[in-house]
Amino acid sequence: MKLSRYKREYNYSYAFGATLVLELIKTHPELITRVFLRPNLEKQGDKLTEIISSLRQNGINIIETTKAFNVLGAKENCLLIAEFNKPQNSIDCDKGTPHVVLVNPSDAGNLGTIMRSAVAFGYENIAIISPSVDPYDPKTIRASMGAIFHLNIASFSSIKEYQNSNLARQLYAFMLNSTAQTLSEVLPNNNHYSIVFGNEASGLPTNFCNETGAKAIYIPQSPNVDSLNLSVAASIAMYTFSHKK
Amino acid sequence: MKLSRYKREYNYSYAFGATLVLELIKTHPELITRVFLRPNLEKQGDKLTEIISSLRQNGINIIETTKAFNVLGAKENCLLIAEFNKPQNSIDCDKGTPHVVLVNPSDAGNLGTIMRSAVAFGYENIAIISPSVDPYDPKTIRASMGAIFHLNIASFSSIKEYQNSNLARQLYAFMLNSTAQTLSEVLPNNNHYSIVFGNEASGLPTNFCNETGAKAIYIPQSPNVDSLNLSVAASIAMYTFSHKK
Repeated sequence: MKLSRYKREYNYSYAFGATLVLELIKTHPELITRVFLRPNLEKQGDKLTEIISSLRQNGINIIETTKAFNVLGAKENCLLIAEFNKPQNSIDCDKGTPHVVLVNPSDAGNLGTIMRSAVAFGYENIAIISPSVDPYDPKTIRASMGAIFHLNIASFSSIKEYQNSNLARQLYAFMLNSTAQTLSEVLPNNNHYSIVFGNEASGLPTNFCNETGAKAIYIPQSPNVDSLNLSVAASIAMYTFSHKK
Repeated sequence: MKLSRYKREYNYSYAFGATLVLELIKTHPELITRVFLRPNLEKQGDKLTEIISSLRQNGINIIETTKAFNVLGAKENCLLIAEFNKPQNSIDCDKGTPHVVLVNPSDAGNLGTIMRSAVAFGYENIAIISPSVDPYDPKTIRASMGAIFHLNIASFSSIKEYQNSNLARQLYAFMLNSTAQTLSEVLPNNNHYSIVFGNEASGLPTNFCNETGAKAIYIPQSPNVDSLNLSVAASIAMYTFSHKK
């Protein structure tokens, strides 16, 4: 059994634990290549029994092994790991589809949490501008609680490349600069828009709106904090835009 | 120099890194008992120089030592640690002051992120119902980005104990049950209210509103996600209530 700890360059990744494996079976059973199961489990529980039965129905190879859990770095309470091929996603450029654009996100936990909120609020397309944290890192997948399997995710080398393949789309850029319009003052006319967030530490560059034609938005906040957490800011923006209509 | 890794029962804790130490000096210099500095730094940088000068002005003992960084488990890029006495906070029961109530929060990152959003949106009082993660765990302090030093934080053994010391306050309980009123339908009449959130995994008990007289609120979300991240949900609630007026 050939196996090594996940690396970004692999065209496959791993979903750790019953919750994620179940979400993967529901959404993309065709991507699963094999599943590792801890051997000699005393109590499987209803959830695990259901998953195993579902894997068998889909003709997926289940391998009872301790080694895989050690090699892949699973925690002790992780009973199940699915190996799956990364999907070859492209984002939906339809005019009726809003996007989330993340410029250089660097934290797996934040990226996964944004995915979870995106699915919750009806944003199915996430564009990631490189360099960035790996969207298919098992840590990102875990933080997404499986939301990643409901999303189209695509990477672009620059915001220009993203704009060239998504013409005439209105960008709303969330800035740390309090001179921009506030979130409560702005409302997209239709769904042909993208909300854009910068890196956790640096935000978007100050000239971002000039260079891209984006509209600057600011989430009003006390001067006693440096900024909001990235996943919090992106989630507030998604909630607000999706509930205003 | 007596020193050991942080434990919850200590009446002091540690702020790791220049950003947190600076925030502590600005808000509560009187709580700082001593500061550890990595010895023989080649470049101190403007920020560090400013902090050290400010510590000296406040008559705070600065100890150059590598040992403290090892014993306390600091990362290599951490140049400064402040030891400080935990403040003896009580929350402000004034009618004009809204509260955030967290029932059994279990994740330091979430608690810190909620603190950050609370300060951003003008909530200065956080009640924590035990059992819970430690609000003064260095991991919580770090996730708060120093927001913790701008807050009143108090623990209660039960929601009843909290209610008994905060009479006639309207509670808004955020439930995972979609039959409750949605967030956009609810607006507090005044600031004599508390928003209440349950544990990351289990939320609030289903009978919570019956037992406390709380009004149930739901943040509408796709059935494709199990729930929102706790810090995201709490931040959306704080943003919405503080910006509706």
